[in-house]
Amino acid sequence: MGADGRKLKMGMVGGGAGAFIGHVHRRAAELDGEIELVAGAFSSQPEKAQKSAQELGLDPERSYLDWSQMMISEGTRPVDDRLDLVAIVTPNHLHFPVAKAAIEAGFHVMCEKPMVRTIEEAETLCSLLEERQVFFGLCHTYTGYPMIRQARALVQNGRLGRINRVVVNYTHGNMVGVAANEMRRRWRADPEKSGISNAMGDIGTHCHNLISFITNLSQSEICADLHAAQPGELDNEGTVLVNFEGGAKGLIHVSQLCVGDVNNLWIKVHGDEGSIEWKQTEPETLWFRQAGKPASMINRGFGDLSEEASRASRLPPGHPEGFIEAFATLYADFAKAIRSDDRSMCLVPDQKDGMRGIRFVHDCVAASQSPTKWHAIAIEQAVTLPKENGKQT
Amino acid sequence: MGADGRKLKMGMVGGGAGAFIGHVHRRAAELDGEIELVAGAFSSQPEKAQKSAQELGLDPERSYLDWSQMMISEGTRPVDDRLDLVAIVTPNHLHFPVAKAAIEAGFHVMCEKPMVRTIEEAETLCSLLEERQVFFGLCHTYTGYPMIRQARALVQNGRLGRINRVVVNYTHGNMVGVAANEMRRRWRADPEKSGISNAMGDIGTHCHNLISFITNLSQSEICADLHAAQPGELDNEGTVLVNFEGGAKGLIHVSQLCVGDVNNLWIKVHGDEGSIEWKQTEPETLWFRQAGKPASMINRGFGDLSEEASRASRLPPGHPEGFIEAFATLYADFAKAIRSDDRSMCLVPDQKDGMRGIRFVHDCVAASQSPTKWHAIAIEQAVTLPKENGKQT
Amino acid sequence: MGADGRKLKMGMVGGGAGAFIGHVHRRAAELDGEIELVAGAFSSQPEKAQKSAQELGLDPERSYLDWSQMMISEGTRPVDDRLDLVAIVTPNHLHFPVAKAAIEAGFHVMCEKPMVRTIEEAETLCSLLEERQVFFGLCHTYTGYPMIRQARALVQNGRLGRINRVVVNYTHGNMVGVAANEMRRRWRADPEKSGISNAMGDIGTHCHNLISFITNLSQSEICADLHAAQPGELDNEGTVLVNFEGGAKGLIHVSQLCVGDVNNLWIKVHGDEGSIEWKQTEPETLWFRQAGKPASMINRGFGDLSEEASRASRLPPGHPEGFIEAFATLYADFAKAIRSDDRSMCLVPDQKDGMRGIRFVHDCVAASQSPTKWHAIAIEQAVTLPKENGKQT
Amino acid sequence: MGADGRKLKMGMVGGGAGAFIGHVHRRAAELDGEIELVAGAFSSQPEKAQKSAQELGLDPERSYLDWSQMMISEGTRPVDDRLDLVAIVTPNHLHFPVAKAAIEAGFHVMCEKPMVRTIEEAETLCSLLEERQVFFGLCHTYTGYPMIRQARALVQNGRLGRINRVVVNYTHGNMVGVAANEMRRRWRADPEKSGISNAMGDIGTHCHNLISFITNLSQSEICADLHAAQPGELDNEGTVLVNFEGGAKGLIHVSQLCVGDVNNLWIKVHGDEGSIEWKQTEPETLWFRQAGKPASMINRGFGDLSEEASRASRLPPGHPEGFIEAFATLYADFAKAIRSDDRSMCLVPDQKDGMRGIRFVHDCVAASQSPTKWHAIAIEQAVTLPKENGKQT
Repeated sequence: MGADGRKLKMGMVGGGAGAFIGHVHRRAAELDGEIELVAGAFSSQPEKAQKSAQELGLDPERSYLDWSQMMISEGTRPVDDRLDLVAIVTPNHLHFPVAKAAIEAGFHVMCEKPMVRTIEEAETLCSLLEERQVFFGLCHTYTGYPMIRQARALVQNGRLGRINRVVVNYTHGNMVGVAANEMRRRWRADPEKSGISNAMGDIGTHCHNLISFITNLSQSEICADLHAAQPGELDNEGTVLVNFEGGAKGLIHVSQLCVGDVNNLWIKVHGDEGSIEWKQTEPETLWFRQAGKPASMINRGFGDLSEEASRASRLPPGHPEGFIEAFATLYADFAKAIRSDDRSMCLVPDQKDGMRGIRFVHDCVAASQSPTKWHAIAIEQAVTLPKENGKQT
Repeated sequence: MGADGRKLKMGMVGGGAGAFIGHVHRRAAELDGEIELVAGAFSSQPEKAQKSAQELGLDPERSYLDWSQMMISEGTRPVDDRLDLVAIVTPNHLHFPVAKAAIEAGFHVMCEKPMVRTIEEAETLCSLLEERQVFFGLCHTYTGYPMIRQARALVQNGRLGRINRVVVNYTHGNMVGVAANEMRRRWRADPEKSGISNAMGDIGTHCHNLISFITNLSQSEICADLHAAQPGELDNEGTVLVNFEGGAKGLIHVSQLCVGDVNNLWIKVHGDEGSIEWKQTEPETLWFRQAGKPASMINRGFGDLSEEASRASRLPPGHPEGFIEAFATLYADFAKAIRSDDRSMCLVPDQKDGMRGIRFVHDCVAASQSPTKWHAIAIEQAVTLPKENGKQT
Repeated sequence: MGADGRKLKMGMVGGGAGAFIGHVHRRAAELDGEIELVAGAFSSQPEKAQKSAQELGLDPERSYLDWSQMMISEGTRPVDDRLDLVAIVTPNHLHFPVAKAAIEAGFHVMCEKPMVRTIEEAETLCSLLEERQVFFGLCHTYTGYPMIRQARALVQNGRLGRINRVVVNYTHGNMVGVAANEMRRRWRADPEKSGISNAMGDIGTHCHNLISFITNLSQSEICADLHAAQPGELDNEGTVLVNFEGGAKGLIHVSQLCVGDVNNLWIKVHGDEGSIEWKQTEPETLWFRQAGKPASMINRGFGDLSEEASRASRLPPGHPEGFIEAFATLYADFAKAIRSDDRSMCLVPDQKDGMRGIRFVHDCVAASQSPTKWHAIAIEQAVTLPKENGKQT
Repeated sequence: MGADGRKLKMGMVGGGAGAFIGHVHRRAAELDGEIELVAGAFSSQPEKAQKSAQELGLDPERSYLDWSQMMISEGTRPVDDRLDLVAIVTPNHLHFPVAKAAIEAGFHVMCEKPMVRTIEEAETLCSLLEERQVFFGLCHTYTGYPMIRQARALVQNGRLGRINRVVVNYTHGNMVGVAANEMRRRWRADPEKSGISNAMGDIGTHCHNLISFITNLSQSEICADLHAAQPGELDNEGTVLVNFEGGAKGLIHVSQLCVGDVNNLWIKVHGDEGSIEWKQTEPETLWFRQAGKPASMINRGFGDLSEEASRASRLPPGHPEGFIEAFATLYADFAKAIRSDDRSMCLVPDQKDGMRGIRFVHDCVAASQSPTKWHAIAIEQAVTLPKENGKQT
C-alpha cells in the first residue's frame, strides 16, 4: 500500500455473480491490501450486473451495464479517484475490445489468459501499448508460485548447467463423459469462443509460458499432434515435440481426457549439471537434483531462496500457501510496478508473452495439420528474462 | 455478504505493522468479502498504532490508541455503522481483558488462541457469554481445513467404527539454537506471557482441540511428561498418554526441539473398521483406510464430501488451498452465525473449547509434576459435536 | 519344486565374475528353490570362465570354455541329469547364436533382452521355436512385478473402460558426463554391440513391452524423434507418438540424458472410466483412479488381487519386495511352464514379444529418419493376451 | 564364497513346509551364494519334517526328526562336511534349548527373534557363548537395510550433533477382528508361547533394537503403558517414554490394533544439528534434514554412502531392494564373520543385543504394572557400537 494508505483502484469487466474466475480475481487482487475493487461492468445482463455490484458493496454509480461506458465515465473522475487498473475476466472473445478500450482510456490492464484470439489482435495491442504509458499483465497464475520463481532463479544462475531437455505435462479428465450439448463442452468446442484451439489454447499455453518463464528458451521448430475426442470438434489433447534454439529438446503433453488426473500440471527441466521438478498439486516443493548428490527438496524458507521467490511468500514455511496466493502475487507485483512506474522488476507475463502464446497455439494447429514432421517457428523469443540470462548460446 | 451487500464491520486489537498474525487475520477475515476491517487499536505504542491504521486505510477517527476506548466509542456509533465483531490478536496476557471488554460492549469476538491464561479467566468469560447475546470464536485454524472437517464427518457417521486409538504429533525445531536472550525465547519462557506452559500451551492445545473436534472423545485420565531444554524454563516438549472415557487410548506428542521438522502436525484416528490420517503440510489429502481394502485418498471434490467440508472449499480440486483459506473458513462460518444469529451450525471452536484447552494444559502440567503415573481428569467434555454423535458409549 | 524335490537344472552363458547381470539372474533363478545352476560357459576368457565356475561351486566338468561345447556335452548327459534350461546373459550380439544352439540342442531358453539384433534373426528363432518343443522366455523384468500384473488384470477385466491414452516414461541420466572413450559409452554407441539403436533399444523396448503387456493394444502408426547427444552416435533419447488400432493414443518418452532421474520408469493408462499409474521406483503401489471417486492405492494383499499378481507375491504386504523378486517371478513362471509342459498360463514374454520389440525399434529408427510425420506399422500385434481380451475393437 | 567356491553349510531347525519364516530364512541365507542348506529338523511332526526335507532336495540322511539328533549326528561328520551354522526358526519357546544345543555342539547360530523368553535363559546363553568359539546372530532384519546402516553412520559420525529425541513407531492392524479362538491370536495371547508380552515382545523389541543400533543410547528410566484389547490377554499395544543416559528423550509406540496400518515401522532421530527419518515401507529412502537447509533424500548410490551401507546394496540405485535383501545382508555379514573368524566388523545383532531386548520387555511389563510414573533401568548398555562412538556423554 502506498505510504498514504491509498489502495490502487480497480475496475472489473466480467466476473459477475456465479462466475468462479471473477471471485478468484477479486480475492487475489485484494489479498495483500494493495488494491480495492471500486467499479465494475460485471455482466452483459443488466440485472446480473447490478446484483453483482450490489453484493460486492460497490457505489451504485460505479456499477456499469456497459464496459465501454465504464472506460469513459471513470476517465472523467478526479485523478485520485479514478481507476488505476482494469481486470478483464470476460469470455475470451471480449478480451481484445475491452483491453483496447481500457488501454486507450489510460488504465493499466490485468487480463485473464488468453490475451486475445488472433495474431492480428495481439499485434494491435502490442503496438498500442508501445504508444501508451500503461502496463499490461497476463494471468499465467503458475508464475506466481514461489517455487516456480525459485526454479527460474536456479536456471538463470546456471545451477543446472546447460539445459538439455524440458518436459511439461498438463492433463485432466474434465472433458470425459461430458455430453455434446453441455455448455462447457459446447463453449470449448466453439471456435468463436475458444479461438482455433481448445486444449492447446487453454492448458497448452500454460505449459508454453512456464517453459519460457523458467528457461527463456526460444523454439526453433515443433512437431505437433492435436487430437479431438469427437471428429470435427476442437482439440482435447495435444503432444508437441520442440527443438529449441541452441539444441535443447522439449516435450509438451496436454489432455482433457485423462480420467483420474486432476489439474495434473508438472514440469521438469534437465541440464548438464542438475534438474528441477515441480508439480502443481504440491506447489510448495521444488525438487533440485544434482548429479551424484542426494535429491534436495527446496521449499519456502530454507536456504538461499531467491528474492523473487521470497517476496512471493506470505507465511512461514510449513503453513501451506496455494493457488490464490500465487494469483495474488501477480497482482502484488503488478501493483508495485504501477506505483513505482517501473515494470522492469515485475515478473507478471506481459503482452509479448501473450503474443508468443498466441503464436504458439497457431503454430501447433498448423504443425498438427501438416503431413511434414517438423514445422519451423518464425519468431519465438522469450523476453521476460533479461537477454543475457538463461539463454542457450 | 448480506443481500444488501453490507459487509460485517470488524475492529482489531493488536496486530499492528510488522505483526505477522494481524496480517493473517485481516487477509482471512476479508478473503470472502463478508467482513471489512473498519477500526483498530493496533498497538500500545501510539505511533505504531497510528501508522498501522493509516497504512490499512482506516478512517483516522476509528484508529484508537487504547482498546478500551475503542469499545466505548464504537458502541456509541449508529447501529448500522458500529462494529459487528472484534478480532483479538494481542499478546496472550491481554486476551482476557480485551475479550471481556468487547463482550460487555456487545461485540462478537474472534480471539487468537489461547483463549486466556487461567481457569478463572476462562470461567469468567464463559459466565459472561452465558448472559450476553454475543458469540465467541477461538482460532484453532486447523479446524477450518476441509479435510479435517471431512475426517470429523467420517467419524461422526460411524465410518471408522468404534474408535480405539488416536495419535497426534506436532513437532518443529524453532526453539533449537535460539540464544537465551532472544526475544522469542524469552517471551515463550516467561509465564507472564505464555501462561504456565510453553509448548503444551502453544502447540499441544492444537492437538487436544483436533482430537476433540474430530472424535468428540472425553479424557478420563492422562500421563504426562513435559520437558524443558533449559532447566527452569517452561516446557519445550511434551508427551501425553490419554485414556478416554469409553476405553479409547490416545497419544499426544509435541516438541519445539525437532530440528528438520517444519510445522509437522499430523493426526491419525483408528477405529475398529477404518482409520483416517491427515498431515498439515499436505492439507488437501485425507487418507481413509478400511480393513482389507485399498487405501483411499480423499480430497476436495471427490465422492461424498460432507456439507461442512464442501462449504470450506473455494476452488476446484487440483487448485491447492492452504492455511489462509482454512483461517478464512473460520471467519466465514463465524460471519454466517452472526448474520443468522444462530451459532448451532458454526464449527468454529467456542469458549467451552477454550476452557477445555486451558484445563488440558493445566492437567498436563500437574500430571507431569506428579510422581504418580496417571492423573485423573475432573471434567473433560467435548461439546462442539451434538452429544449423540461420535461419542463412545 | 517337483514333488520329488528335484530342481530344474540350468546352464548359463555369459555372466562371469564381475558381470552384474549374471549375478542377478542367478539370484532370481534360485530364489524360489525351483532351479539350480549346474553348468556354465561364463566367459570367452578361459581363466575368467574357470574362476567364475569355481567360485560358484560348479562341478568342474560342467564348466565350459565354449558355449557351443556346453550345448553338445550337456545334450549327451543322462536325461535326468542334463540341463532343463539355458540362461543367456551374453553381450547382445551373441544372443542369437547362443539361443539358436540351445534351442537346437533341445533346451528351454531364458534370454536377456533384446532377444536379437535384427528382424531376420528374430524370424529365424521364431521359425525354429515353431518346430521344436521348447519354450523361450524374454527377460522384461518389469512384467514380473505384482502391481504390473494387477494393472494388466484391471485393464483386461474392463475396469478402465475403453482405453484412450497410454503414456510411458523411462528416463535416467547415466549417459551424461560419460567421456567418449569410456567403455559403457563406446559399447552403447557401437551398432555392432547395440544394434541400430541405443536408448530406444535398451529402455524404449521396456516401454513398448509394458504397453503391450498391460493393454494388448497394437500400433497402427508412429511418429518418432530419436536424438543423439553426439552427432554420429546412436540415439540417447527418443520420443514416440503412437496411434493404436482402435483409436487410442500413446506417448513413449525415453532418455539417458536426464540428470537427476534414476531409473525413472512409469506408466499411465487412461480409459473412459478409470486410470492406472505405476512407478518403478515405488513398485509396490498401483494407483487406480475412477472418475468421481477418491484415488485408490492398491498393493499386494488388499482386496481383489488377481491370481497372476497374487502368485508374484512372496511376503506379506508391508514387507517390501523389489527388483530381484520381480525377476524371480519370471523364472518361477517359466519353471512352472517347463514342469507342466504348458506355457499358456505363463506370463513371461516370449519370442513373439521379442519380435515385436525388434520391429518397434526398427520402426522408430525409420520413422525418426523420415521427414514425414507418420510412419505406418506393418504388423504389430500383441499376442500374450488371449485375443478376445483387452483388445480395442 | 570362499576362494575355493565352498559354501558355508547350514542346518535349519523349524521352518517346515508352510512356515513362512523358514522360507524367508532360506531365501535370505542363499541369496548371495555364500551359504547352502544341507540339513534340517524342520518339524516335530515326522511326516512334515520328511516332506519338507524332500521338497528342499536335501540328502535324506541329513533330514532329522529330532533337532537334538541333528546336533549330534552333524557333529560327527568330517570337518569340511559338517554344518557351519544352524538357523533357528522354531516357535519362541524352543529358541533356548535349540540354541544351547547348537552352541554346545560347536555350531554358529543364527536365531529368529526373540532370542529367548527369560532373562535367566539369556544369561545362560551369554555365559555359554563366552566360553565357546562360536558366534550368535539375532535376526533383527531391519538392521540389514542399507539406509538404516547409513542412518547409524550419520549419527556415529556426528552429523546430527548431540541427540535430543528419538521416536519410533511400529503399528499394524493384524489383531483387529481376530476371533478369540483363532490360532494366531491364541498363540500370541499365550505366555507359554509368547513370553510375558505379546506386542512389546514382538514389535516393540524391533523398535528398541533400532534405537540401540542407530544411536547407541542407553536407557536410564522408562514410563510404560501396555494395553490388551481383551482384559486378561497379553498386551496388543504399548507406549513407552524413555529417558536416556545423557539427557536424550525417547518415545516408542507400538500397536497391533491400528486398522489401516500395514507394518508401519518408522524411526526419527533428532539431534542439535540435524535429523534422520526412515520408514520401513519406503526402505530405500533416508531423509536427512539439517537446520536451515533443504531436506536431503539419501538413497543407495548417491554421495558419501558409508561402507556398511554400501556393502548392503546389491543392485544399482533405482532398482528397488526390499525385505529379503535386508535379511540376506544379515546372513552375508554373518557368513563373512564366520569365514574370517572375526565378528568385530559384523553388524548382526548378537547375544548382548538379545539380552538387552529381553530386559527391555521385562522392564516395560514391570513399568506398565507400576502406579509410579518412572521405572529405573538397572543395566542397559548398547554395545554393538564401539564405546567411543555415538555415545551421549
